Amino acid sequence: MRTVRFVDPAGTERTGAYENGTATAGGVSYDVEADRIRLRAPTTPSKIVCVGLNYADHAAEQNEEPPDRPLLFLKPPNAIAHPNSTVTLPAGKVRIDWEAELAVVIGEECRNVEASEAMTYVAGYTCMNDLSNRDDQNVETNWVRGKAFDNSAVLGPVLADQDAVPDDASIELRVNGETKQASSIDKFIFSVPELIEEITTYMTLQPGDVISTGTPAGVGALSDGDTVEIEIEGIGILEHDVRIP
Amino acid sequence: MRTVRFVDPAGTERTGAYENGTATAGGVSYDVEADRIRLRAPTTPSKIVCVGLNYADHAAEQNEEPPDRPLLFLKPPNAIAHPNSTVTLPAGKVRIDWEAELAVVIGEECRNVEASEAMTYVAGYTCMNDLSNRDDQNVETNWVRGKAFDNSAVLGPVLADQDAVPDDASIELRVNGETKQASSIDKFIFSVPELIEEITTYMTLQPGDVISTGTPAGVGALSDGDTVEIEIEGIGILEHDVRIP
Repeated sequence: MRTVRFVDPAGTERTGAYENGTATAGGVSYDVEADRIRLRAPTTPSKIVCVGLNYADHAAEQNEEPPDRPLLFLKPPNAIAHPNSTVTLPAGKVRIDWEAELAVVIGEECRNVEASEAMTYVAGYTCMNDLSNRDDQNVETNWVRGKAFDNSAVLGPVLADQDAVPDDASIELRVNGETKQASSIDKFIFSVPELIEEITTYMTLQPGDVISTGTPAGVGALSDGDTVEIEIEGIGILEHDVRIP
Repeated sequence: MRTVRFVDPAGTERTGAYENGTATAGGVSYDVEADRIRLRAPTTPSKIVCVGLNYADHAAEQNEEPPDRPLLFLKPPNAIAHPNSTVTLPAGKVRIDWEAELAVVIGEECRNVEASEAMTYVAGYTCMNDLSNRDDQNVETNWVRGKAFDNSAVLGPVLADQDAVPDDASIELRVNGETKQASSIDKFIFSVPELIEEITTYMTLQPGDVISTGTPAGVGALSDGDTVEIEIEGIGILEHDVRIP
């Protein structure tokens, strides 16, 4: 099952079921392409807990050793951007990279969760573009300017439940139609249950909170006017345009 | 003027005026000490943007050079804890430190603010204990386990407007009655307007968001059962107890 958040033609924000390009809420169905509805990020997290270097091939391309425990960083709610939008990125930077990621959406408040129980707290999955401002990231102690800027977390298009997404789901990112990243989510160094156990040792996760699970090899710099698509098997395609002033 | 958030004897959360130990909301006054009301953090931020090493004497005691631009890190809403509470800290750590800080509360949504205009976006000030888990902070890339754990941001007791707090207000922290930190807020390396300009170059600040401005020299490790008081001139005393399991 997949759910979608959208703004209907009257401007009202709704959450409904999504199937084959049709969103249904309150008994009314909309064709996502044809009708004038705007998709929204499928969750409203109080925080996004991100994981760095969680694919060995991406660690290698960054000239980093794979970490011995999850490398965590944070994106606050100001970072959230929406599917099919144009995201404006910080001005005057040389390199802002794409990073395709599987985003885990929490369904129930949890703390001190054991890995063996962790999946019972997961509402489902969506796609995330973990946009990364390398100019600042590479010179600051904590990645705030580098990772927490406005629009740095594009989320969507739908929330897919666990059954909809295979354990070895493919993950692919295309820029202007050209494939840049292609991997599968069974290549994680730390699994989703391991991440939930580690994070909830320190922090309460709230319903709607997101854990973003890291990106595979193939990151690169965006240019003004680019169109990005992130496709994860079982979820669908998150598309957005890029504006760099 | 000072405002306070509290839970009244019926369990309802209220925001009211605070003067000389009396909270008044909806025409009803409560004696904060005598009546059975519970103070709450005076703001509900979507994020807390913290500043590291913003007093030269604290940078020196941490064996760090003062930074050439603000050292930023983040605390999400799960970090918030309340005045007059007992805050439970992560188990099994050798060193969790106190850090007394002036917390700036944002009053109006803002982005790309110039320093000269910045104070028009400030609702006021409160006290914050930026509790810091050095065991993890000293070994992780981003300070998430070290700084963003549950209860790591104790906020209160009141929101004091700008006029109530002198430019050179004293800031003091006591543990079990003994003074550990004593300084004044005119010793910042980066001023509040400079911090707002730098942060809003990258991030939108929302009403209620907090910028915590760094701590002076005198940090040290907490023990189970300690009582902490942070007093800032013009704001009052933030008090809480410590539980380390």
